[in-house]
This record gives sequence, C-alpha cells and structure tokens, in this order.
Amino acid sequence: MTTAQHLAEQWPGERPEAARRLLLAAVDSFSSRGFHATTTRDIATAAGMSPAALYIHYPSKAALLAEISRHGHATTLALVEQAVAGEGDPRARMRELVEQFTAWHARGHTVGRIVNYELRALPEADFAEVAELRRRIEEAVKQLIEEGVAADLFSVAETRTAARAVTSLGIDVARWYNERSSESPEQLGSRYGDLVLRMLGAQVD
Amino acid sequence: MTTAQHLAEQWPGERPEAARRLLLAAVDSFSSRGFHATTTRDIATAAGMSPAALYIHYPSKAALLAEISRHGHATTLALVEQAVAGEGDPRARMRELVEQFTAWHARGHTVGRIVNYELRALPEADFAEVAELRRRIEEAVKQLIEEGVAADLFSVAETRTAARAVTSLGIDVARWYNERSSESPEQLGSRYGDLVLRMLGAQVD
Repeated sequence: MTTAQHLAEQWPGERPEAARRLLLAAVDSFSSRGFHATTTRDIATAAGMSPAALYIHYPSKAALLAEISRHGHATTLALVEQAVAGEGDPRARMRELVEQFTAWHARGHTVGRIVNYELRALPEADFAEVAELRRRIEEAVKQLIEEGVAADLFSVAETRTAARAVTSLGIDVARWYNERSSESPEQLGSRYGDLVLRMLGAQVD
Repeated sequence: MTTAQHLAEQWPGERPEAARRLLLAAVDSFSSRGFHATTTRDIATAAGMSPAALYIHYPSKAALLAEISRHGHATTLALVEQAVAGEGDPRARMRELVEQFTAWHARGHTVGRIVNYELRALPEADFAEVAELRRRIEEAVKQLIEEGVAADLFSVAETRTAARAVTSLGIDVARWYNERSSESPEQLGSRYGDLVLRMLGAQVD
C-alpha cells in the first residue's frame, strides 16, 4: 500500500473532497519541508487550489495540522482500546496491541512523523486535546500491563516505564521505517510483539 | 545538569569561542523553530554576532547542522564502541551500552531531536558521513547481540530487528524526555537496561 493510499483510507469520504485534498497536500508539504517552513500558499498550490479556497475549509495551516494530529491520535487510540478490549488473556491482547500499533506506525510513517514531531506547533486548545488522547493511549497500555501483572502473567518493575517503552518503540517506527525497509509492517509488528512480551516478562505456557 | 551545560560540555574549548557560541545558538534556534524556518540571521543574532561574522566560521546554516549532527553521532558511536569493548560478558556490556545510550539521549534530548529529525536537511556529503556513523552504531549493537547469542547468553530470532529495537528505544528518549520527567537520565538508563536484557532473552545466572 502506498502512502497516498494509506492516507486516502484515513480520510474517507466523510468530508468535502476539497478538504480531503487539502489534508493530503498538507501532509505532503509538512513532511517534506517541515511545518514551520510551509506556507498556506504551498498547501493550496499542492492541492490545486487558490489560498482563498483553502481558507473556506481551514482558517490556517495550524488548523490543518490540528486536524491531521487529532485524527492520527484518535485512530491510534481506537486501535489500542480495541486491542485492550479484545479476546484472550493479557498476553494475547498485548501481542495484538503491539502488532497493530507497530504496523500502523510503519504504514503511516509520514503522518506519524508529523503528529509526533510537530506537537509543539499546535494551537494551545488543540495541543490540550491531543495531549489528552496521548495520555489515554499510554494509560490503556499501562492498564493492560497492570492486568497482566495482577494475573501473574507479566512481571514488571515499573509499569509506567514499561508502558512508556512499549509505546515509544512503536512510535519510533515512524521515524526510521520507509518503503525500502526489508520488513513489511505486519512482519515488523509480529517481531515487535515477541520482543515486547519478553520485555514484560510474559510467562510462556 | 541544564541543557546549556550539557551542550557546553559537548563543545569544549577546542575551537574558537565564536564558533562554539554559534553552535549553541544554532541548536537553540533549530530546536525551537525547526531547521527550515531558521535563518542564518536568527542564529547570528542569538549568538550576538552579525551574519557576516557567522560566515567567517560557517558558510551556511546547513554547515552548522552538519557540524552538530556529525559531532552528536560521533560521540554516540564512541560511547557505544566503548561499552562493546568493555569488561564482562555480553550481558554486562549490553547493560552498560543501554544505560549510557539512554542517559545520553535523555540528557542531550535537544541535540538528539535535531540530529535525528533533520537528517534529510543535511547536504549530501554530510548525510553520507552521518549515515555511515549511524550504520556503525547499529552494527556495533548487532555484533554484541550476536556475541551474546553465540555464547548462549542471549536468545534472539532476528538480530537485525533486535538491534534496531535496542537503538530505537534509546533514540526515542530524545523525543519524549524533558527536564520535568520524573526519572533522572541515569534511572531511566538503568530501567531500560533491565528491559533490553529481557528483550534479548538474557540468561540470568
């Protein structure tokens, strides 16, 4: 799957086609030039529109960044919560969580970089909203670890540090993964699943 | 230790004081504004100099980025190679490696972000040089893992993936760590040391 296809799937037909084109163009511009060096004119041009047409949909490039970031984080949280609420014991659910989380960051590495590295460029209210989504992602991972510890299936000295390490490992995939990587997103997810279960001292039946 | 102190230690008195001031100002500007949105004038002003005075030392802002990146990577490689060549069996040396690597990225998170996220902004020749340093860092980690596997002390399915995970975990510390983090760089290093040894299936005596 190409990055463009992956992005297109992230913003399906719920919104005006023009807004979708602007989001894709913004992702492109932010990732190649960085948020600060991108102008609204760059984004409008890449989307085949005038700056005036852009402003109909988004008041600023920060509003586009906020939309990308909110959507990226909300999708990630949904994926994590689905894995946590899934079938099986905490080991099986943690494996599912890490597989999905890792593959998602590999597939969506372009968006992943933007939403993780341009956090400080968000307007204050958007930052607060995204920070809350991030807190909930980490909290969900931490609770699953605690559930595993309570069931004597995991053995972890510091659940907060372990939860941080699990999410950190997945997030950093967006930094180094690219289409030339020798592992598919799914392969990498599966291998990271093994590594994380060991890291959590998972009991093997 | 403040970021400024940490940076000052990274560029001790080997070079003209003006060049050192420019490097510190560049780190400051790149980290707050991003590389692309920073001008040479911004850097010169932050260093209390004229743009003309900057050009005596560095021909461009990219040359400053290259110097920061090269130095950061060379220091990291030295730290990794020292741990690999150290005392003790592969478990002891891997623990030392992870402790140092993690604490380094926590302490130097400002520089760490720049050198890891602005790689693509490097001029081609500098990029090649830094890419070679990165390859050597990962290779050193991989060889230590292989040594541990050969000695039946580690058990790892894919040494390349495991080496990637070990370095990735440490590098990502620069993204999320800040002075308000509840763990000191050394504490975090020690906890990550435990997690990584488990990840590598290290035998406990």
